[in-house]
This record gives sequence, structure tokens and C-alpha cells, in this order.
Amino acid sequence: MSAPQPTEVPAAETAPAATPAATDAAAAPAGDGEGEGPSKKAAKKAEAKAKKEALKAQRAAERAAAEAAAKAAGGGAGGEEVDLATENYGDVASFTAKGGLRFTDGAVPVALPQLGEEHVDKPVRLYGWIQNSRMQGAKMCFVELREQQDWTIQGVLAATKPDTKENIVSRAMVKWAGSRSFESCVVVEALVRRAPEPIKSCKVSGYELHITKFFVVAAAPQTLGLTLASANKAVNNFDDTAGGETTEAVEEAAEGVKNLDVSGAAGAAATESTIAGASLGTHLDNIVMHKRAPVQQAIANVRYETEKLFREYLDSRGFKGFQAPGLIDAASEGGANVFQLTYFGKPAFLAQSPQFYKQYEIAGGRKRVFCVGPVYRAENSNTPRHMTEFTGLDMEMEIQESYHEVLHMLEGVLLHIFRGLKQRCAEDIETVRTVYPSTDFLLPEPGKEVRLTFAEGQQLLREHGPAEFRNVTDDEDMSTPQEKALGELVRQKYNTEFYVLDKFPQSARPFYTMEDPTNPEVCNAYDFFMRGQEILSGGQRIHEAGLLEARMRRKGLDPKSEGLKEYVDVFRQAGVPPHGGGGIGLDRVVAFFLNLPSVQLAAYYPRTPKRLLP
Amino acid sequence: MSAPQPTEVPAAETAPAATPAATDAAAAPAGDGEGEGPSKKAAKKAEAKAKKEALKAQRAAERAAAEAAAKAAGGGAGGEEVDLATENYGDVASFTAKGGLRFTDGAVPVALPQLGEEHVDKPVRLYGWIQNSRMQGAKMCFVELREQQDWTIQGVLAATKPDTKENIVSRAMVKWAGSRSFESCVVVEALVRRAPEPIKSCKVSGYELHITKFFVVAAAPQTLGLTLASANKAVNNFDDTAGGETTEAVEEAAEGVKNLDVSGAAGAAATESTIAGASLGTHLDNIVMHKRAPVQQAIANVRYETEKLFREYLDSRGFKGFQAPGLIDAASEGGANVFQLTYFGKPAFLAQSPQFYKQYEIAGGRKRVFCVGPVYRAENSNTPRHMTEFTGLDMEMEIQESYHEVLHMLEGVLLHIFRGLKQRCAEDIETVRTVYPSTDFLLPEPGKEVRLTFAEGQQLLREHGPAEFRNVTDDEDMSTPQEKALGELVRQKYNTEFYVLDKFPQSARPFYTMEDPTNPEVCNAYDFFMRGQEILSGGQRIHEAGLLEARMRRKGLDPKSEGLKEYVDVFRQAGVPPHGGGGIGLDRVVAFFLNLPSVQLAAYYPRTPKRLLP
Repeated sequence: MSAPQPTEVPAAETAPAATPAATDAAAAPAGDGEGEGPSKKAAKKAEAKAKKEALKAQRAAERAAAEAAAKAAGGGAGGEEVDLATENYGDVASFTAKGGLRFTDGAVPVALPQLGEEHVDKPVRLYGWIQNSRMQGAKMCFVELREQQDWTIQGVLAATKPDTKENIVSRAMVKWAGSRSFESCVVVEALVRRAPEPIKSCKVSGYELHITKFFVVAAAPQTLGLTLASANKAVNNFDDTAGGETTEAVEEAAEGVKNLDVSGAAGAAATESTIAGASLGTHLDNIVMHKRAPVQQAIANVRYETEKLFREYLDSRGFKGFQAPGLIDAASEGGANVFQLTYFGKPAFLAQSPQFYKQYEIAGGRKRVFCVGPVYRAENSNTPRHMTEFTGLDMEMEIQESYHEVLHMLEGVLLHIFRGLKQRCAEDIETVRTVYPSTDFLLPEPGKEVRLTFAEGQQLLREHGPAEFRNVTDDEDMSTPQEKALGELVRQKYNTEFYVLDKFPQSARPFYTMEDPTNPEVCNAYDFFMRGQEILSGGQRIHEAGLLEARMRRKGLDPKSEGLKEYVDVFRQAGVPPHGGGGIGLDRVVAFFLNLPSVQLAAYYPRTPKRLLP
Repeated sequence: MSAPQPTEVPAAETAPAATPAATDAAAAPAGDGEGEGPSKKAAKKAEAKAKKEALKAQRAAERAAAEAAAKAAGGGAGGEEVDLATENYGDVASFTAKGGLRFTDGAVPVALPQLGEEHVDKPVRLYGWIQNSRMQGAKMCFVELREQQDWTIQGVLAATKPDTKENIVSRAMVKWAGSRSFESCVVVEALVRRAPEPIKSCKVSGYELHITKFFVVAAAPQTLGLTLASANKAVNNFDDTAGGETTEAVEEAAEGVKNLDVSGAAGAAATESTIAGASLGTHLDNIVMHKRAPVQQAIANVRYETEKLFREYLDSRGFKGFQAPGLIDAASEGGANVFQLTYFGKPAFLAQSPQFYKQYEIAGGRKRVFCVGPVYRAENSNTPRHMTEFTGLDMEMEIQESYHEVLHMLEGVLLHIFRGLKQRCAEDIETVRTVYPSTDFLLPEPGKEVRLTFAEGQQLLREHGPAEFRNVTDDEDMSTPQEKALGELVRQKYNTEFYVLDKFPQSARPFYTMEDPTNPEVCNAYDFFMRGQEILSGGQRIHEAGLLEARMRRKGLDPKSEGLKEYVDVFRQAGVPPHGGGGIGLDRVVAFFLNLPSVQLAAYYPRTPKRLLP
């Protein structure tokens, strides 16, 4: 087949720079930064608003006209004139009988992030979603296509005179393409042209697509359950029941985003300032649009990178990954909040942590291990901080001299994660901030890591904290408000939002924790904090059966009870080296690093007492 | 503190090369290779056997003597003479009150794999397990220490005259050390000496440790539930009930290892040729020793490397990892063999595969995703091929032109895994082979990958397979024996043990599989095989709601039923691009690559209908 004839479109029409509304939105923050006076600003704002409203009305009229035209055309066939472009557009399904879609030879498949100078004036083929479209008269249509997070490009269809049979664009085709529903999946063939001036509304601002074939692969509904613009707004309610009250954390977040301009992130669709956010329930009921929102794509990227950074740091230090089982015979670690199931007629349980299995790996001769996997908590708590299933990043290692080897390893892996995220996910972090504002996560200077003892932390609270914490003691665990207050004090004093609390009191730690040999009131155990919230718990474990049994008894547990007996017996099978470790909540690390109002936004498919869908 | 005085031991005693038994064992295979005649060989064998038995008796006597001596000494205090070494040996626990262990300043902690020339004649500190020990008279004792898989070194304790207070080794100390139970965890201080000739029984053959301090960190029992030597033998029974019958696969494996010499892998402890293997039940009841066996350490390494290779290949090709949920609202994919639990008063289920969630990720705008996680099957099958929980390596990606893009990606990742394992795990593969023999896994030459259609496979079976497969048809799924027979035919014809079967019949695939547009009798779906056994199943998925509903109905499923309705609705939320993927069973890949007699040996903590422990 011959090379396609470029569709001739007058330059003025070809490159309308961007829709005025989109240009406005993108320009606004830049204008703010140029030192203009407030009155000039206000005038500009009013003008922009008027423009926007006019445009909105115009677009609505256009849309209605296009839809009417498409209806009249009977979905593909030309209206008055004979449609010579029937091979060039339509629903993919309708082509199956005709032997499939036909593309021009030499039209190379391309992904938007890879689009470059080598494609200019050449035909390409490309999958995408219709992010926006607008008819311009009856002969031309602008279609903004998106793929992968927020890669958008402006496409244009312009009706040509029927001079060539191939690559013809008919009026009917233009109308049809212009009236397809947003978020439909399409595959197009197009000539790549340099944009005469940058198209500000699109991430690919230097090129545009002159579309010659336009096929709908899978249609979106005429009305989306959640528009991309709404999906890219801050979630405004985390209570998964209608009319539920919002928590303090959610209200805080809502306050923060109230006046925020999110148009940059969501593209043209977000330019309508009246777009409302939705509840998390609505987001999850519309999981496809929830996930397509640039903010969720960015969060998912940060989450994946967090896991990768965890793995790479430990792997390079001799740790080996393993998988702990999910199904267990007895409710370990006390037995509260555990899911029970029927296992071939007998009871079984879902693992609440890989704790015992990490220790079995060490007992079994692995020097350093980590695992990444699901953990389950049957806790009926309905807050933005709780989930019933989450992902644990766990590690365990032999101790040579001091459990501080473990503490430093965990501190090291977390600093590696935080620094790595700032470096590798800078753009994603910015994208998230357009929806959920946050300050840069403060880290300690190398060599100035903050490690306080629990007692030092309590002292700080007593001496400098809020009045209600004047009387906190050294032998009682901290409450969440206490932790938050201490996080604030540490930030003020040491200029870091990441720090360690060491030497927790015995009463606050599980039975397998090794006590401090010099002070049996406290343990060789630590918590790590981000922005005043716990993200990691760990310590040295008891590696000797006799000691373990004695500790269980002191904690009021029966070492002969089911689950515990099997655990203790492992330490009798052979001599186990001293070891320690910790467990990091992946969802929490992501949520606190990005200052998200709920850990549920950091999860791919959050599980709460009220929700197992999707 | 001053540098330690080296303990002066006559050279002849210092380097007894190795225990005779161990030398024998190590030398035997080398002798076989040197072309000696059979009669000479037989004589040598008989001699070795006699020596071995004499030694065995000697060792038993020594052990008894040492134990008696230790008992008389009251566990640490010297017998007749005053013990000046009480600070240098004993149970760690007994030192806690005394302010802890005391090591010589400058005694650096070292791990055996890192031991080198820079340590010679210097004091080091080291954790390890007592793998073997032997008294030589009353003044000297050899202790073989092991750490991390199979890193062993010979240590020697020789009683010194009490000329210096520091670093003294008393007779009582020698006796005590020599009578500690095998697999106890110890920490020792020692001077590193070059071995005058290689110590063949130990992996660290060039050095030995002149031990000056010997502390037991955690004692093993006097009688191990499973010795290291037994743990390193082939598992001889996979039926987890006493007296159960062994399956064909297990019998095959047992036959294969019958005459195998495993002394190289398990070190000196395995030199007794009478050591019996144990059942998998015994192994798992003694999980610590099961895991410490070099063969299990090697399998664990191969497994970890397999997962790493999977991740790195996909990551470098733009795939993003995610976690699919374990808890789901409705039994998906048909509802058979699914575990049910009570979720806050309502039923919930454990995910049988991440299938739906991988698709939701694609629908939600991720172009390429993978996940590694547990999947559950409530199937009451008690064979070495079944488990109720296993690890899935899953991927899903957008399709540009043909689902063969997915097939090639999966083929690529598996070839990357196989080639990577051969390269990175050569030593581990050899270790496994000493217990479970296997031939090198045959791979196709690059560019000569074998991809047959299902129909071609059936034809091969009909024409060249065993008589019972003369009448196999193209529209019925293959049985396991058929798969095995076809694997054999493919190996003979193409010289590969890895190949692909494409275009499975409709009847053999789930409802979400896309049919071949040119032949609706078959699907765009494939299985991958290793040594005639399926390790991967995948294909193109239906990406359009209407088509999906129609297919469900044709399969006799109700698209409005719970679980299916929610799934179909996702494809109505917005237009979903064409996509496909596949799921790889990690346990199977490891087991078949290493030719293990059961997938349960490839799992860290196998779950079967009869076992959830440990």
C-alpha cells in the first residue's frame, strides 16, 4: 500500500494551541509567580472565568450538535453525501467479519512517552483513551488522547475532499469520532506533525496527531460513574456508608485541598472548577476511573518503587527473600483479631504476621531474610487508618554483637527508600501534591539520625509537650495522640520527620521480645516513626526455648497452648543464633510519605470491615 | 587488653589434615575418575569401609568418655586441677550475671565465606553450629563448625599449660567443648592459621581455627529429631500419614538416589553410608534441621533467584508490580475449590488467582503489570504435585497487535529465568543434584523456540506417541500422562524440555478467554511446559462486557450471579484495551527445573490438606 496522503488542514486550524480554558488553567500559577499586583490578578481571574463559562456553553452546544449529527448518520454511514471513509472508522467489532482493521503499511505502533522527532511527518498507530473531544464546525474535530497515567496528545480529524480512496476522512467520520464517549479505548492511525506552538493542555506539547483512521476498541458508557476529573480530586469521605461522618484526618485533608488548582494534573477535563470530589466508596465502585486518575497512578508508582527500594537494599546486603505462609494451624501471637476458616473440616487461620516464620528461617540456617506479603487483621475498626489486609515488608537477621545492628539496618533501608523516592519519583510526588498537598518529608542529615529511648521520648513530652501529657510515665505504651505530639517535638528540635524510639517498656511488647540485660524493665525493641506515626515495629527476639517459656508465663500465656507450643518447640530442635528484625507497613510508609489522608488510598484494593469489593 | 598469646600446638597435631573418614569420602569420587581398575577399586573400598567402622567405634568411645568427663567436671569447673579457663567457655546464659562474654580486643567478627589471608595469625570471632566434634586424647579436640548453608571450617582446641591467664585453654574446657551436642549454636574466638594441607572435609579448606574461647549460645538437644545427614538425604515418603504408600513419582526419585554418594554435600556427618532418609512429615516436624540441610538451602536459593529473575526481566520492560488482594467477596472463576471464611458476620473467600485484579489494573490504565503472591486452592488432593497454598508469578499486559506479544514476553521471561539460574546458581544446582539427581534442563537455541498448536501436539501424540494416545482428539484437553508423553516426543524431536502449546480448544479454557477470530473452536490461549509438565497457563482475555456476557452464557454461567456480575461490570465502567497474560507456578518451576520428586520440596512451608504446620 502507498504512503498515506497527509490531510491538508490550514495551519490556523491545525494548531489552536490548546483550548482556551486549558491554557488559562495552566497559565494561572505562572502568572501568580511573576509578581503581579492583586487587582491585575483579580481582573485576569474574572476574565478567565467569563471565558471559561462562555466556552463551557459553546462546548455543550457543540457536543449536542455532534451527537445529533451522529444519530442522524446512523452511527457510521454518511449523511447526505456518500461516505467513502467507512473503512477508516467505526467500532472494531464491526470489522471482524470484514477481515479486521486495515492500517497503512509502515504505520508504526508507538507509545506516547516514546514519541519523538523520528516520527514527524510519518504515519503512526496508537492506542489511547478519549480524554476530551470538541467539534469545530462540521468538518473538524479535536480529540485529546491519553495513555498511561497522564500522557496526553492533541489529535485532530479534518474532513478532506474525497480525492483519494485511502486515508480519507469524511464529514461523517469527523462527526462520529467527535461524539464518542470519553474514556473509550480507541486505536488510531495518524500523521505526526510538529505543533507550531506548544500545546499547553497536553503532556506531549510539541506534536499533534492528524488522525486518518479512528476505531473504537471498547466503548465507555455515555455517562461515566466517575469522571476522570472527579477521580483526580481529593477523596472527600472515607466512611464507606452513605452519610457517614468524616474523621478529623479527612477534614484536615479536605481543608488543605479546598482552593487547590488541580487542572495541571487532570488535563483539560479538570478545568471546570465546579468539579466535586467523591467518596472513597464511589471511587472503589468505579475502580477503573479511580485507578486511571493521575493521582492514583502516581501513588501506585510510589508504592511499587518503595517495595523495589526495600528489596534492592536488603538483597545487596546478603538478605534472601522468602514467602511466609498465609494459612496457619493456630492463631499465633495471642489469638485476637484473627480470621478463622474451615480447612478440610478443621479450623485454620490467616496469618497476622510472618513473625514466627522469619524466625524459623533464621533457626533454619538463613543468616538474613526478608519477605513481602499480605497480613490480615480481623479488627472491626472503620477509620482511614485501618485495613483488614495490608502488605508487610518484613526482615529478620542474625545478630553478631548487638541488636543495634538490626536497628541500623532497618534505619538504613528506610533512609534508602525515602531518598530513593525523592530521586526516582519526583514527578509522581508532585502529581500527588496537586491533589493531596504535602511538605517535603524531612530527613536527618547522614550521621545525625535521631534515636531516642522511649524514656527520653516521654521526658520530651512531659517537659515540652501539650499539657495533657505532663504526667506520662516510662512504663506505659504511647497513645496515637502522644506519638503525634512527640513527632512534632522531634521535628522542632531535630528538623527530621523520621526517627527511632528504642528500649520500649516490657509491658508494651510481645512475649518473644528480648529484654535489656542491663535493665529488665525495658526491651531491646524499637518503633520507627514518620510524621509522628508508627510505621515499623521490631526488636531482638528470644532465641532460647527456656527463656521463651519463662517469658510467656510472666506474660500470662501458657507455653503448652496450641500455637505457642509448636513455636517454642522449634527453638528446642537445634541451637538458634541471636536474631532480630522488624516489620514495616508498606501502605503506611506510602501514605505518610505522601501525606495521604488515609492508608486506604495507598492500597491497590483496600479491604475494610465494610468492603471486599472490588 | 593485650593481644592474645597464640596457643602453641605441635605442628603434627595442629594439622591432622582432616578426619580419616572425611578424607575417604571426599577422595572416593576423585579415585573413580582416575581410571583405576575395578579390583583395585574394590580393595580400596573395603579398606575404606574397615577404616570407617573402626573410626566409628573409636568416635563413639571418645564421645562417651568426653561426656563422662564433662559430667564429672560439673559443666565448666575443672576436674582435678584448678580450672583457669572458666572465663573462656560455658553457656552464654551463665555469663549474663558476670557482665557478659569477654572477647579479646581486636578479635574481629568474621563470616566464613569472607575468611581470607588478611585474617591469618589474627584473632577472629565467629558464630556457627557444631557440625561434628572429636576428642583426640584428653588434651585436644577437633570441632567442625558450620554456618550459612555448607560453609564449614575445622576448629581445634588444645589444652595449654597455664602459663598465661588470658586465652588459656584448660583440659576441662577441651572436654566440655568436645562434648557439646551437634547443631548447638556457638560463638568462638580463635586464631586463624593456614592449613598445612587442604582440609578436604571442610568447605574452608585452606584455614583452620585455633579456638581460644568457646561459648554455647543456644544448645541443641542431645539427640536431634533429624540429623543433618538424614536431612540431606532424599525425602523417602511424601505421604503425610504413618505407613502411607509412596506414589510413583516418589518411587522413581528414590530409585534414582539409591546408590548416590552424598558425602560431598553434607560434609563429614554424611560419611556414614548407613544413614537413612526420612519422610517429608519427619522433615517438616523438624523444620530447623530440614532447612539447615545444604540441599534445602540450595533449593531456597534457586527459588529466590527465580523470583528475582522474574521481577528484573519484567521491570526492565516497563512492568509495574502490584499486590492483588487475598480476601475476596465472592468465589470467582467458577467457585469450586475455594476456601471460605467468616468476615465480620458475612462470608468471604480466599483468592484462587489474581486473574481479575490483573485485568482491573490494565482496565485502570496500567499498561503492564506483574504480581507475586499467594494463591489458594481448597482441593483435597494428597499427592506430591498438590498444595493448597502456593506462590503465583503473574503478569498481564496490553496487546498492540497480537496476543503473541504476550506469549513471547512470557517465553522471554522464562528463558531469562532458566538461563539465569544456570549461570547464577550453578553451585546450588550441583548441591541439589547430589541428593536429587537431574540432567541439565534442555533449552531451545535462541530463535528456535518450540511453539506448537494444541492440534499439532495431538497429532504428534497420535502419530508417534504411545498406543493409548492413538485416538486423541483436537477438542479435548490433555491429561497429565498425555502431557508427559508429548514432552518426551518434543524432547526427542526438538532437543528441548521447554516448549509452548498454543491455541487450546474452547472447552479447555475459562470463560474470560478470547477465542481465535479465524477459528472459534480454539482460543488465543497457551500453556507452557517443563519436562512435560505444565508450569504456565495464559492467553488473551475478553476486554469487552458484551462479549464477556455472551461467552459466560455459552459456558453455562450466569453473568448476573455474584462475583461474575461485579467482574463484567468493570468492563462497562470505561473502554478497556485488548490485553493478555499468564500465571506461572513458582513452586512448579523450581521443582521441575531441579527435577525434585515433589513441589512440596520447593515450598518454604508446604500446605497440604493434612498439614498446616509449621
